[in-house]
Amino acid sequence: MKRSNKLWGGRFRSDPATKTEDFTQSIEVDSRLVAHDIWGSQAHAIMLAYQGIISDVDLQHILTGLHKAEKNFRNGTFRLERDKEDVHLNVEAYLISQAGREFGGKLHTARSRNDQILADARLYIREQLLQCQGGLSRLCRRFLAIAKAHPETVMPGYTHTQHAQPISLGFWATAYVSMFLRDCKRLNAAYEIVNVNPLGACALAGTSFPIDRRLTAELLGFDSVQEHALDVISSRDFIAEPLCALAVLMANLSRFSEELVYWTSYEFGMAVIDDAYASGSSIMPQKKNPDLAELIRGRTGRIYGALVDHLTNLKALPMGYNRDLQEDKPPLWDSFDIIQSCLGILPDILETLNFQTDRMEALANANFATATELANYLVGECGIAFRECHEIVGGVVGDLVGMGKPFQDWEETQILLQQRGIKLSIPKLQAILDSKCALRNYQSLGSASPDEVKRMTEEFEERLDVIEAKIETRQAAIQAAHERTRQIVERVLAGKPIGEVLPE
Amino acid sequence: MKRSNKLWGGRFRSDPATKTEDFTQSIEVDSRLVAHDIWGSQAHAIMLAYQGIISDVDLQHILTGLHKAEKNFRNGTFRLERDKEDVHLNVEAYLISQAGREFGGKLHTARSRNDQILADARLYIREQLLQCQGGLSRLCRRFLAIAKAHPETVMPGYTHTQHAQPISLGFWATAYVSMFLRDCKRLNAAYEIVNVNPLGACALAGTSFPIDRRLTAELLGFDSVQEHALDVISSRDFIAEPLCALAVLMANLSRFSEELVYWTSYEFGMAVIDDAYASGSSIMPQKKNPDLAELIRGRTGRIYGALVDHLTNLKALPMGYNRDLQEDKPPLWDSFDIIQSCLGILPDILETLNFQTDRMEALANANFATATELANYLVGECGIAFRECHEIVGGVVGDLVGMGKPFQDWEETQILLQQRGIKLSIPKLQAILDSKCALRNYQSLGSASPDEVKRMTEEFEERLDVIEAKIETRQAAIQAAHERTRQIVERVLAGKPIGEVLPE
Amino acid sequence: MKRSNKLWGGRFRSDPATKTEDFTQSIEVDSRLVAHDIWGSQAHAIMLAYQGIISDVDLQHILTGLHKAEKNFRNGTFRLERDKEDVHLNVEAYLISQAGREFGGKLHTARSRNDQILADARLYIREQLLQCQGGLSRLCRRFLAIAKAHPETVMPGYTHTQHAQPISLGFWATAYVSMFLRDCKRLNAAYEIVNVNPLGACALAGTSFPIDRRLTAELLGFDSVQEHALDVISSRDFIAEPLCALAVLMANLSRFSEELVYWTSYEFGMAVIDDAYASGSSIMPQKKNPDLAELIRGRTGRIYGALVDHLTNLKALPMGYNRDLQEDKPPLWDSFDIIQSCLGILPDILETLNFQTDRMEALANANFATATELANYLVGECGIAFRECHEIVGGVVGDLVGMGKPFQDWEETQILLQQRGIKLSIPKLQAILDSKCALRNYQSLGSASPDEVKRMTEEFEERLDVIEAKIETRQAAIQAAHERTRQIVERVLAGKPIGEVLPE
Amino acid sequence: MKRSNKLWGGRFRSDPATKTEDFTQSIEVDSRLVAHDIWGSQAHAIMLAYQGIISDVDLQHILTGLHKAEKNFRNGTFRLERDKEDVHLNVEAYLISQAGREFGGKLHTARSRNDQILADARLYIREQLLQCQGGLSRLCRRFLAIAKAHPETVMPGYTHTQHAQPISLGFWATAYVSMFLRDCKRLNAAYEIVNVNPLGACALAGTSFPIDRRLTAELLGFDSVQEHALDVISSRDFIAEPLCALAVLMANLSRFSEELVYWTSYEFGMAVIDDAYASGSSIMPQKKNPDLAELIRGRTGRIYGALVDHLTNLKALPMGYNRDLQEDKPPLWDSFDIIQSCLGILPDILETLNFQTDRMEALANANFATATELANYLVGECGIAFRECHEIVGGVVGDLVGMGKPFQDWEETQILLQQRGIKLSIPKLQAILDSKCALRNYQSLGSASPDEVKRMTEEFEERLDVIEAKIETRQAAIQAAHERTRQIVERVLAGKPIGEVLPE
Repeated sequence: MKRSNKLWGGRFRSDPATKTEDFTQSIEVDSRLVAHDIWGSQAHAIMLAYQGIISDVDLQHILTGLHKAEKNFRNGTFRLERDKEDVHLNVEAYLISQAGREFGGKLHTARSRNDQILADARLYIREQLLQCQGGLSRLCRRFLAIAKAHPETVMPGYTHTQHAQPISLGFWATAYVSMFLRDCKRLNAAYEIVNVNPLGACALAGTSFPIDRRLTAELLGFDSVQEHALDVISSRDFIAEPLCALAVLMANLSRFSEELVYWTSYEFGMAVIDDAYASGSSIMPQKKNPDLAELIRGRTGRIYGALVDHLTNLKALPMGYNRDLQEDKPPLWDSFDIIQSCLGILPDILETLNFQTDRMEALANANFATATELANYLVGECGIAFRECHEIVGGVVGDLVGMGKPFQDWEETQILLQQRGIKLSIPKLQAILDSKCALRNYQSLGSASPDEVKRMTEEFEERLDVIEAKIETRQAAIQAAHERTRQIVERVLAGKPIGEVLPE
Repeated sequence: MKRSNKLWGGRFRSDPATKTEDFTQSIEVDSRLVAHDIWGSQAHAIMLAYQGIISDVDLQHILTGLHKAEKNFRNGTFRLERDKEDVHLNVEAYLISQAGREFGGKLHTARSRNDQILADARLYIREQLLQCQGGLSRLCRRFLAIAKAHPETVMPGYTHTQHAQPISLGFWATAYVSMFLRDCKRLNAAYEIVNVNPLGACALAGTSFPIDRRLTAELLGFDSVQEHALDVISSRDFIAEPLCALAVLMANLSRFSEELVYWTSYEFGMAVIDDAYASGSSIMPQKKNPDLAELIRGRTGRIYGALVDHLTNLKALPMGYNRDLQEDKPPLWDSFDIIQSCLGILPDILETLNFQTDRMEALANANFATATELANYLVGECGIAFRECHEIVGGVVGDLVGMGKPFQDWEETQILLQQRGIKLSIPKLQAILDSKCALRNYQSLGSASPDEVKRMTEEFEERLDVIEAKIETRQAAIQAAHERTRQIVERVLAGKPIGEVLPE
Repeated sequence: MKRSNKLWGGRFRSDPATKTEDFTQSIEVDSRLVAHDIWGSQAHAIMLAYQGIISDVDLQHILTGLHKAEKNFRNGTFRLERDKEDVHLNVEAYLISQAGREFGGKLHTARSRNDQILADARLYIREQLLQCQGGLSRLCRRFLAIAKAHPETVMPGYTHTQHAQPISLGFWATAYVSMFLRDCKRLNAAYEIVNVNPLGACALAGTSFPIDRRLTAELLGFDSVQEHALDVISSRDFIAEPLCALAVLMANLSRFSEELVYWTSYEFGMAVIDDAYASGSSIMPQKKNPDLAELIRGRTGRIYGALVDHLTNLKALPMGYNRDLQEDKPPLWDSFDIIQSCLGILPDILETLNFQTDRMEALANANFATATELANYLVGECGIAFRECHEIVGGVVGDLVGMGKPFQDWEETQILLQQRGIKLSIPKLQAILDSKCALRNYQSLGSASPDEVKRMTEEFEERLDVIEAKIETRQAAIQAAHERTRQIVERVLAGKPIGEVLPE
Repeated sequence: MKRSNKLWGGRFRSDPATKTEDFTQSIEVDSRLVAHDIWGSQAHAIMLAYQGIISDVDLQHILTGLHKAEKNFRNGTFRLERDKEDVHLNVEAYLISQAGREFGGKLHTARSRNDQILADARLYIREQLLQCQGGLSRLCRRFLAIAKAHPETVMPGYTHTQHAQPISLGFWATAYVSMFLRDCKRLNAAYEIVNVNPLGACALAGTSFPIDRRLTAELLGFDSVQEHALDVISSRDFIAEPLCALAVLMANLSRFSEELVYWTSYEFGMAVIDDAYASGSSIMPQKKNPDLAELIRGRTGRIYGALVDHLTNLKALPMGYNRDLQEDKPPLWDSFDIIQSCLGILPDILETLNFQTDRMEALANANFATATELANYLVGECGIAFRECHEIVGGVVGDLVGMGKPFQDWEETQILLQQRGIKLSIPKLQAILDSKCALRNYQSLGSASPDEVKRMTEEFEERLDVIEAKIETRQAAIQAAHERTRQIVERVLAGKPIGEVLPE
């Protein structure tokens, strides 16, 4: 007496209510994983046959069915159905419809959806991580192009959104690269956590079948096997770690966005966004808005929220698979989508951004930004303690502000210094207080000096070379593993016994 | 020379890049708002004509076009297009395509997308809030049905997941109702914040046109006008407040889910989930899992994350509209979807849940849960200070635990009490320590006594009556406003001048 | 044989390890609650005697002991000790040390720490909520003072951090008041959730003693009894709701802070912070930084994090008291401290803030902010559709931007309009495009027009009057309840039987 | 004319208001950093002298003053004062009070508080990270002790909180170790981000003084120099990354806590907490509660909230130092405190935890947990497809559940199998369905088989050896750097010129 139509329904007296199906299905989220699920199933079946757990005939039927599933999913004749819950049961049901239960029903030997979904997810996430790194590298290259074009374009360096000291546009641009390189490192660490083989953990305890977990790892391009079965099934730090890396990256992107919004304001006027990357207003005819920067900034919350979502999920969850964990994917998928789209458009915005270098230089000279240089000069030349020099120069600035005058009112500045016992000629003063001179005077490691910016730019380029090479190596390894599986499938379909296709 | 095809493109020399369009469009999120946007536009147009800002002829053309847009959106011939960015420009462009720019181009007089989207969103959110309240009320009714069926079904009340004191299943069920009633109150407070008219705030400063904001409020069924234009445009607490209310509600749902998961474990065995609301395992044939409860618990993070998303967005955002605010909708839409689906399925789970009342009673008697009653008895009968009684009974329990015996080893219990100077007959002991007796002895306001549970059940039913009546009143008011707008449109389309349709 | 020295230790064979005591104690957090705990205990003891559960003699001893505890805590001779875990056991132990176990040991009759801590916390939180409302009201008054001083001080209204339309400084200031008034409403709603009596819920099930929960409510100034004992013990929305209200309020404060930071930048130059509310740099002598605004902005995360902390805590917590809930207080205490300090300093910052009104006006006229007014004029005077006018004016602005010219290059503007078929005299143009004229032309409800700002200012003042009156009423009610308890205590200490002190 | 008493006050006409000082000071948070700040200052001063920026005499005065500061802070005669804002200005002011402005005023040459606080924080955080790793390692050792004691202690493995398959207590214990080893890896990655030298970045642009950043790195035991000055000052991923690592670790701890709470419930009865690590109830004499586990679970929100706090802070913060960043420390300090205390007590709880192995075994056999083994057996022996076997066994379980019987009703089980065409003798059935046999049958890599648990235990021990060795190496390196600085100071105080103390 058959009571439930579910593949897992033997124990059940009735099928789930439709509402239950609607509530529990994950078709939309899983739809990205069909190809990965099939690859995983191919690898698993090949391994089962290689280990003698299923026969060559079984394998041939299974691989034929999976091949059809793959082809027909691509051409749209095989579609995921909600009442089959998830990608796994859809593919298995399709396989059984093609190969018969006699053969198709053997694929799930020594396997659970618990380890299967982990394999699918990891295959997908590693691709996304490589794409993120690639996008980030492209963005860095764009910042470095700015750095190379603007080694001595002086601008105000800000602290507290107040003029602090003169820096160069190139120095500013390389700061982001310096930050993003650590984001790359985090994405790389996440990749290492992700790219290990969960297959073979089965439900949570492993299995009594003589499976070979290293073989499936190899066929799927995983770096190694994640061994402990209960850890495999229970832990989700391979989701949390990418989410953390993306959250910090997004924080950095939001900071750049904030600067873009303010730099392109009328008041700052330090950059103009190209018409192609701005929008207008439906009511105010004159508006040209930095919408893209605002949206990146505004989407930061999505990534933060995704991380909170996932951490909340993990809180107080007992070991073993719990259905709560099905919800691990939406926040990460969503985060990847947002980050990829941000990384996709930022280089274009940057490339077409029109820096107002005259305005930058004017601002750099306008508001006492070189006061520290004057203090430093007094330390060096007059041997006065820095704290004293700070007070002298601060006093001069305070008086000038009170009079509404800038340093450039040279005579006044000279007098005020003189009142504090400092005698400096006006040409000397001009040299000290000119922002471009100040820029060239910097000499410390990692400073805003043109030489240092040039040196760091070169170093960053080399590091990007290494990063990009690593991305390529990894993509090639994935490609090679996939190709190898494809070839094995082909030869099995051509009738070769697995022992011949895969000699020991 | 036309340079940009955008409705706002006069000032631009080129159209946005395709990537810009892709990045900024909000078609998917807006697709829920088409009907609301059209209603809002109808109300706005009627008001413009009534105020003499546009003519009767203008109005007729506009309402005819909007009518078509509405009809054709429903039948699928008018679809939102990504390159028209959002619902507003899609509808306006469609209107212009139907009515010509000469007439259609007048709709946006004294209006900005800034206030328009707020109107759309508020119309949508208020519906959702009413639905949430309705769903919550249905869930409460289901808990009350349990309470009525189980006034004296004794079960262990837990603190620290340890047996504390005997309570009844009905008491447990009414506790959730008591909690959810405050959730209803929060949803109601959110409704009040939401249901006010933002239209007429325009871009951020109001307008020099003689608009009548009270009229649009009336036509759209808003309770009043949100007056201060800059506040209207800048603030998003009408999003934050529903999100907060939903987060607390979801926390409550997650707590019920946790109990459901544990109560249906083999170890607790206090309830059995109906097959229709459970799932099996792809590998383990015996499994029957409380997936729905786990998924509700697991989706808690989504709602928390949504709240964090939105709060992050608001942080440090300057006044006025900023494009970041486009991102206010996804977290709230998503939260509503999740909450509605949870509230949709929970009553069914509860209705079919099979409480194991024998097991509950056995547990209630098993593990010293009535120790407090014994201490209380000693206070009352022997006049010993409670702190002393606590120590005496604690000592007895400690000794029994050491011997591996329960209270029900009456002679041992009697002896241990005697050693501490307390003389009680075994029948007396049995009466004091029986969990059902203890239940009946409770007498304080709001206690687990059957009488109190009955009283509270009745009171909660009355409060639900009031809540449901209010939901209906509000739905009727919305319906009436919509119907009135529809009738005005009809009469204008029939050629009546607005002055006649809407006499002063 | 006494094995444990804990007041709850009867059942235990050994005392907790020191590490356990250190880990579980809550002395620091509880230290704010000593006075509240004693008040709650006084009310509880009075009720017990009034109900005949303890005798007049018992009551006298207990109240005498509590009186000493109160006095000696104030003068520092009674101090909370970590090995007594929390405020409750410290007070009870102190009481027993004074009154003897025979009497002092009776205080905890029909009471649990579970309901006791809830009473303490609610007494404390309601005070904090009233203080927050008071602080917020003071801040609003300060904004209204600005509004009254600057009804026609024109400044650019921003959207997307770009000039949108002219507004007045007064309009800007009243926008914050309009927002904060809703924050007040939320704090008020939180107060209503908080100010109900949990005492008498006992451990989770109520009690078999004939207690009177309404009497303790009255003595403690609670508005009513929170009845359902299990709900009382389990729910923490009385913590969550204040946290939500504070999070939204803090978001609003962070937005003001952001504006303060940018307005006081050299580039905006719209305000100057008084020296007394700014800081300097240890290295850069010229710096004057808006540190206070930055710190308020930077502390936003603390409040958000506190809310996340609490929501995380609640997730999946089963009903009944769980020790996790001890952690409900630190996030709320911390949030109150931060908010109170922000509300304490903001009025001073505002009062001493030096608005640069000339700069504001110059900016308002500088960057095409009145373009919408020109479009509106064309609609009204020339009867052209708004969408057309938008395009015409947008085209003119685009051309002027291309030439690097403002509207104020009147002849050029006139020519560009003429090229688009619009003929306007230069004086007409000047009148339309002057920002002050535009301001005065606004006429819609809630707009930036001076009249509307004046009207709203008056309305807001009236609403603040109502809010402040309510705060006072509540503070008086609390004070009266406290005074009444004090008088009862006094009369009992003077030897009056409770039946006489509190006649039926 | 001196107008402000602040060390940075030259430019100011008045001192900050007291409220400003209260609001901005960070004395409490900084009080942990005094020793680090002094070490940093010693290294900076030595470098300045070595580079010839200050003289040998200057150096001697400065080091003498710092030496006093260090000594007197330890003995309590030098205390941080709130009106000196932070640790840096307190130390500098103290130095100046000792050495005079002439010498003490030279310490801040080529340094800003911006880079100084980063050095202090990094010195402190690296210590905390090493301590966390040490604590985690100790916890792992404790889990491994359990694993070694219980390789074949069978217990139910759970998924969905339902019996899934038999596992061993040792397998369960090693799962946590497997997870925590990745937490260690994350803490290690955080260490690498943290332990780099920020000194010399100065305000944000570096300096024109010829400083040597590698020398200060060496003296302070930093692995290298973080070069880019603007990145140094602006970025806070060295805070975010530890917070992320701690959040994931805390999630893992909360999961263990959840298991502890449920395992020690009456219903599960799988473990008993030692009296020394439990608490009682003030009202219910019988209670013994797992408070520690609950508190760990309940403090999870604190760490999550701390992460949200910090990420919120970073959102949209422009480059350069902003005072918001002062708030980077409280969440991390608080998180370290919580994690350290959890790691401090967990090994003790575990060590004294009394596992109820009989109960575990009984549960493992009770509820069809070996159904998968039966299905697998049918696959292997009868060559039936797994999906078919799953259905057969599921059907048998369904029927048994319907009859209220277990597998152990052998005859019934045999009959039900026979009805499905499977013939198995009762001894065979017993062997297949016995949980201990099932445990021994597992053979896959990482499975619950006793051999695999043993193998993994040994491997984990080796990995812990490596981790602990690395912790020691790092602690030794820190110690050595500190010792070297101390010796240099000593020799300078003894009158040696720096060129002699530190030859090129």
